[in-house]
Amino acid sequence: QSSKKKIGQCVHAINAEIDAAVQLLLKLKVDYKQMTGQDYKAGCPPSENLIVSNNGPAADDCDGEDLVDPWNVSASSTKGVDYDKLIVRFGSSKIDKELLERIEKVSGQRAHHFLRRGIFFSHRDMHQILDAYEKHKSFYLYTGRGPSSEAMHVGHLIPFIFTKWLQDVFDIPLVVQMTDDEKYLWKDLTLEECHRFTVENAKDIIACGFDVNKTFIFSDLDYMGASPQFYRNVVKVQKHVTFNQVKGIFGFTDSDCIGKISFPAIQAAPSFSSSFPQIFGGKKDVPCLIPCAIDQDPYFRMTRDVAPRIGLLKPALLHSTFFPALQGAQTKMSASDPNSSIFLTDTPKQIKNKINKHAFSGGKDTVEEHRKYGGNTEVDVSFLYLTFFLEDDEKLEKIKEDYTSGALLTGELKKILIETLQPMIAQHQERRKQVTDEMVQQFMTPRPLNYKF
Amino acid sequence: QSSKKKIGQCVHAINAEIDAAVQLLLKLKVDYKQMTGQDYKAGCPPSENLIVSNNGPAADDCDGEDLVDPWNVSASSTKGVDYDKLIVRFGSSKIDKELLERIEKVSGQRAHHFLRRGIFFSHRDMHQILDAYEKHKSFYLYTGRGPSSEAMHVGHLIPFIFTKWLQDVFDIPLVVQMTDDEKYLWKDLTLEECHRFTVENAKDIIACGFDVNKTFIFSDLDYMGASPQFYRNVVKVQKHVTFNQVKGIFGFTDSDCIGKISFPAIQAAPSFSSSFPQIFGGKKDVPCLIPCAIDQDPYFRMTRDVAPRIGLLKPALLHSTFFPALQGAQTKMSASDPNSSIFLTDTPKQIKNKINKHAFSGGKDTVEEHRKYGGNTEVDVSFLYLTFFLEDDEKLEKIKEDYTSGALLTGELKKILIETLQPMIAQHQERRKQVTDEMVQQFMTPRPLNYKF
Repeated sequence: QSSKKKIGQCVHAINAEIDAAVQLLLKLKVDYKQMTGQDYKAGCPPSENLIVSNNGPAADDCDGEDLVDPWNVSASSTKGVDYDKLIVRFGSSKIDKELLERIEKVSGQRAHHFLRRGIFFSHRDMHQILDAYEKHKSFYLYTGRGPSSEAMHVGHLIPFIFTKWLQDVFDIPLVVQMTDDEKYLWKDLTLEECHRFTVENAKDIIACGFDVNKTFIFSDLDYMGASPQFYRNVVKVQKHVTFNQVKGIFGFTDSDCIGKISFPAIQAAPSFSSSFPQIFGGKKDVPCLIPCAIDQDPYFRMTRDVAPRIGLLKPALLHSTFFPALQGAQTKMSASDPNSSIFLTDTPKQIKNKINKHAFSGGKDTVEEHRKYGGNTEVDVSFLYLTFFLEDDEKLEKIKEDYTSGALLTGELKKILIETLQPMIAQHQERRKQVTDEMVQQFMTPRPLNYKF
Repeated sequence: QSSKKKIGQCVHAINAEIDAAVQLLLKLKVDYKQMTGQDYKAGCPPSENLIVSNNGPAADDCDGEDLVDPWNVSASSTKGVDYDKLIVRFGSSKIDKELLERIEKVSGQRAHHFLRRGIFFSHRDMHQILDAYEKHKSFYLYTGRGPSSEAMHVGHLIPFIFTKWLQDVFDIPLVVQMTDDEKYLWKDLTLEECHRFTVENAKDIIACGFDVNKTFIFSDLDYMGASPQFYRNVVKVQKHVTFNQVKGIFGFTDSDCIGKISFPAIQAAPSFSSSFPQIFGGKKDVPCLIPCAIDQDPYFRMTRDVAPRIGLLKPALLHSTFFPALQGAQTKMSASDPNSSIFLTDTPKQIKNKINKHAFSGGKDTVEEHRKYGGNTEVDVSFLYLTFFLEDDEKLEKIKEDYTSGALLTGELKKILIETLQPMIAQHQERRKQVTDEMVQQFMTPRPLNYKF
C-alpha cells in the first residue's frame, strides 16, 4: 500500500507539472492575442493531434494562412480567402477545365455558372462519381443546413441552388440534413427552438424548387429517433474516431461538452447510403456526392478517413467559396448581424437601402477619380454578388469592363445588383408562401423516393 | 507573422514538455504494475478532473481503497470490497434498519432477503420514493444489462430477481436497457453480434418472470432509432456534461473513441420518464428508481448532477454488492472465464464440478483442523452464494453455525450449494425454453404498459 501511496504522490506531482504547462499555454494564448489582436485558434493545432489522413497534408503549416473551420472563417486579405492555398492545405483538387468539360459531357448540359465562375472551385473524387455514372451506376446528393435562426440570407441559398441544378442534370436523389442537434449543442437555444428553425428553414429550402419525389429533408432530432440504421452508422463512426482526432480536426478542448465531441459522427453518417434504407433499399454502396462550402470539409475529411475502416464508401465532394458579407470578402455573412446580409425576408426597400449603405465598394472616392482610374471588381461586393446571381455571362463581362474602365459608377453598379436581387427575392418569397406545413411534413417523412436501387 | 511563428514554437516546446510528462506517467504505470502486480487504473483520477457533485465526496481519497468503476472491480481483502467505505466514498446512504422497516411498511411485504442480508446495501433518495408513493405518487423502475455475450451467469440475475420483487410489491412499470451500443464501442464485436446478444440475454431476463404488460425491454441500437424523445434527452445530457467531467468520473483518455466519451448520456437518459412517452404519456416528472450493482453508480452520480440543470428529476438508486467469482470475493465474475462463474446454461454436472473444483473454501486444510477450528463463512464462496440463493433464513443461520463450529465440512457445504443451484438453474432453463422470439418481440416493442400516468 505504501508503494501505491508513493506512486499516487508521483502521479500528483506529474499532474502538477502538466497543470503548470497548461497554465503557461493559457498565458501564451493571452500574449498571442495582445500581439496579434486575434484569438489563438486551433486551426493550427499541434501536429501530433492531427488525424493521419490519406487525403493529403492537413493544416499544419498555417503561418500567415486564412483561418477556415466550420465555426470560423477569417481572411487576411480584402480579396478574401486564398482558395488556391486552401486546396493545397486541405489536400483537395481544383475544379479545372478538364473536369468542367467532363461534367458538361456526362450531364449533357452546360455547366452551372457557379462552376463556370469558380464559385464551386474544389472537389474530392468527382471523377470517380462521373466514371461510375457513365457506367450507369447512379449516386445521391447530400447537403445540409445548421438551423440557427428563422432567417436565412441569400448566401445560405448557394449550396441549395447548386444542388438543385445537380439534381436536375443528373436526376438523382437528394438528402438534406438539418443539424438542429448541432445548433442546440453549440448555441444558447432550446431543443424546441432549434426544431422550429429546422421547419422554417426547410420552407426556404423547398422554395428553391426541389421535387418532393426526389428529396428527403430531415431533422437530426427527429430522424435519429426514427431510423435505427442511421444510429448504427453514427455509432460505427463514433467507434473509429478518437478524441485526439476530433481535437486535431475541430480544435475541441477538454472543456467542451461530450455532445460537441461526438457530433461530427452525426454529420458523417448521411454520407453512407445505408443510413437511408427507405431510399436505397438497404444498399450500402450507393456513392454520395456532397456539395458544400469549403468550411464544412473537416467533417468530410474525417468521414473519408473513417469510411474504409467501417467498410463503407468515401463520399465525394464539391466545395464552394464563401459568400461575402456586405462589408467585404474577409468574412462570411452572419445571420446574427442584420446589416451584414440580405435576408430572404427583406423587402425591396430594405434590399435597396442595405446595398446602398453597406455594400463595400471597389470604386474610387470621387466620380472624377473613378472615371479616370476605374473600380476594382475583385473587392467590390456588389460585383461579387452579381457573379453569384447574374446568370448572363456577357452582361456580367460588360459590367466588369465598364466598372474597371470607370464608365460604370458604384451607384450604377449597385443599382444593377438591387434590380437583380429585388425580383429574385420577391419570387423566393412568393414560392415560400406556397409551401404549406403539410408539404414540409411530406418532405420530412422518411419514405421511398422515385428511384429504384 | 513572426511573433505567431514564435508562439508556434513555444507551443510546440510546451507540447514536448507535456509529452515528456506523459511518458513519465506511462513509465510509472509500468513500475506500478511490477510493484503491485495490478494495472494502475483511473479509479483514482486527479481530483481536479472530478465532477463537482452534490452527492458527497467522490473518489479522491483512494489510497489503499478498493477499485470500483463500471469496468473494474478489485478488492485488496479476501473478504471482498469494503462496502461501508464505498458508501462514504461514493456519498450514498446505507440501507439501515429504519429504511428496511419503512420499505416493509409501505409495501406491506416482508423485505426481500437481498435487503435483509445486506446484498442491496446502499441507496440514494429511497426515502423520497417512499414519501411520494405513500402520497399515491407512483414511480418506475429502470435497470439494465450490457449484452457482451450470449451466456449470462447467475450473478447477472441478481438485479433482475430483485427488480422483479420490487415490481411485484409496488406494482409499477419497469424499463430494461440493453446497452448493445456500449458493448459495440467497448468490445471487439460487430453491431450484429451485440444486437443478437441483446435478444438472447432478453430471453434470460424474461425467464425471470416479468409481466409483458408491465415491462419494456429495449436495445439501445433499436430504441435510439425509434424514439425522438429518447434522443432528445440524450442530447440534453450531452450538452451539460464536459469531457473533463467524464474524464474525472470514468477515467476516459484522449485516445478513447468519441463513442465511449458520449455514451454515459445514453445510460443516463432512461432515468427520465420523458424518454418513454409511450409509457408515461409525455409526463416528465415520474420518479425513477434504479436497482443496480454499485459499480454502475458513477453513471448515475453524473445523471443526478445533470438532472436539475435540464429541469428533470434525479433518479433514486438501490445499490447491490458484487456477486463473487467462484475463486473468491476479490473480483466480480467474468463472462469471459467459464470457470469463474456458474452459467445459466450449465448442466447439473457442470454445476457440481465447478463448485467442487473452483469454489474458494473458507474451511481448514484437513478435516481434523476443520473440526477443531471451524470454517470462515466470510470468505467461503459456497456460503456467500447461499446468502444470495437460499431464501430460508433459519436454514442459512444453521449452516453458518455448523460451518463456523466445524460441524459442517466444506464438501458438505458445497453439496448444499450444488443442490440449491441445480434445481434453480434447471427451472430457469425450463422457463427460458418457453420464451419465444415473438415474446421477445412483444417485450421489446415500444408501447403503452398497463398503467395510466
